[in-house]
Amino acid sequence: MTKIALGIDIGGTNTAVGVVDVKGNLLHRFSIPTAKSAEALVAEVNLAYEAIGLKNVSLEGIGIGAPNGNYYKGTVEFAPNLSWKGVVPLAEMFAKHFGVPAWLTNDANAAAIGEMQFGAAKGLRDFIMITLGTGLGSGVVVNGEVVYGHDGFAGELGHIVYDYDGRSCGCGRKGCLETYASATGIVRTAEEWLMKESVSSSLRTSGMITAKSIAEAATAGDELAIEIFDFTAKVLGRQLADAVAFTSPETIFLFGGLANAGELLMRPLKKHFEESLLQIFKGKIKLAFSALPEGDAAVLGAASLAWHELN
Amino acid sequence: MTKIALGIDIGGTNTAVGVVDVKGNLLHRFSIPTAKSAEALVAEVNLAYEAIGLKNVSLEGIGIGAPNGNYYKGTVEFAPNLSWKGVVPLAEMFAKHFGVPAWLTNDANAAAIGEMQFGAAKGLRDFIMITLGTGLGSGVVVNGEVVYGHDGFAGELGHIVYDYDGRSCGCGRKGCLETYASATGIVRTAEEWLMKESVSSSLRTSGMITAKSIAEAATAGDELAIEIFDFTAKVLGRQLADAVAFTSPETIFLFGGLANAGELLMRPLKKHFEESLLQIFKGKIKLAFSALPEGDAAVLGAASLAWHELN
Repeated sequence: MTKIALGIDIGGTNTAVGVVDVKGNLLHRFSIPTAKSAEALVAEVNLAYEAIGLKNVSLEGIGIGAPNGNYYKGTVEFAPNLSWKGVVPLAEMFAKHFGVPAWLTNDANAAAIGEMQFGAAKGLRDFIMITLGTGLGSGVVVNGEVVYGHDGFAGELGHIVYDYDGRSCGCGRKGCLETYASATGIVRTAEEWLMKESVSSSLRTSGMITAKSIAEAATAGDELAIEIFDFTAKVLGRQLADAVAFTSPETIFLFGGLANAGELLMRPLKKHFEESLLQIFKGKIKLAFSALPEGDAAVLGAASLAWHELN
Repeated sequence: MTKIALGIDIGGTNTAVGVVDVKGNLLHRFSIPTAKSAEALVAEVNLAYEAIGLKNVSLEGIGIGAPNGNYYKGTVEFAPNLSWKGVVPLAEMFAKHFGVPAWLTNDANAAAIGEMQFGAAKGLRDFIMITLGTGLGSGVVVNGEVVYGHDGFAGELGHIVYDYDGRSCGCGRKGCLETYASATGIVRTAEEWLMKESVSSSLRTSGMITAKSIAEAATAGDELAIEIFDFTAKVLGRQLADAVAFTSPETIFLFGGLANAGELLMRPLKKHFEESLLQIFKGKIKLAFSALPEGDAAVLGAASLAWHELN
């Protein structure tokens, strides 16, 4: 009998499920559309899991990564990208349906735990995971434990304010970090700059602008695209320097769509970050990419939450 | 035999020492000028302590609060306000001289531990202590433990940047929070505004401007002074809202010179703080003053570090 945990990553569109052993091996994975109700989702995950027909396994627990996930209560609360309303006790619903314990946190916290258990953060006690996707998520680890805060919602670095008179954010406020530093944020920068600047750029003619198309233009030497990465790196570097003044992590890991830009992002980021650091932190804090395989990191992270709690 | 710890608070001008029992009773306290060398300071503290001639006590340990104090190494490193140079292994020096274990951290962390052991933070696992003195210091507590970070220097919220084009800071950068929100910061605001604004204000004729004189003017109804408090509260409230997004504390405590302004500061601070919070945190996070007696808090905090470690 192989002991397994399910790692469930709930997104606005799809929900991915991984069957993961205690060493982080992904034995199986599948993806289904995220159902319109939580009840339906739980039932559909169960059906799909049973359909695999895994033999000689013992399901020990379930870990869930979900937007606006509250670790203490196991609830998903007012998630703006899900069609579920109000406060949904999702961990309890999965636990009841599957008859095993279930835990829930937001996806960035799950990624941080995954990095700690199976990735590049093994042995680190103080680090921060930054996920650069549609928004900017974060998992803050202090003394080897994820910081959940008194209410389970700590680690919302995407909503630290960079510019109080800045861009409108989905949270209702202005100038939040994620409106600049995320796959969506860099596209907003490109769109703004193309409106304002008269410089030529291949981005004007390349069709729909995405984080990927900006990266491709920058790789091909497009100066505006290179400047867009530099600006994005400056905003992120400055705010990460503030984060260092807060918890002094040994390493800050980057992960997610925009992190795929690799050195296009990392090179200017290291420069701006280092310039922005308070003297006592200069030269001490590493910036690195996550070592988890991108496609599987979310489900590995979610499963690692279950293994972390079970151990 | 009463078990006692020494709590030593090292300032740029004076060093205060408290003899504190395990319940936080301050049995004795004295203050001496901070010596030009660490060796001399240790010897002078020892002489002054022996001169008291306490009977029937057993010295168990020493806690030290010091600027730029490194908890892990027990060192004071490149403290700008002390005449000592470089890295000074102060905890070890005290431990050797007194023959008991000694621990060291910065003064704001010591205040946080003091609040947790003897003050208003008893039983709280997630809170932040903000000291508003010459600068802005902070002690961040997560899961019941002070956040020291990987290098012992975490919790430098005074150097989170409010305005990248803002006021010059002693750290060499611009716009740090403490250049606005501290006893020194509010005086800078007053001096700047008196230069720029043509409005009448009793501050123009009240002699040297201090945090206290601004508070007195505001209490007497001086409109500029009231606006200065509102601005200071706005800057602090916004940055504390960012701090909430980071570690989601249950309470943020204020302490130190500027906190003596009481409701003059607290009333606008609560308003700006609440307005600035991310939706999920609104109405949940308390702002409060420290419950430690102001004159004794630093030595109580330092002693509490020793008791915290000894237990």
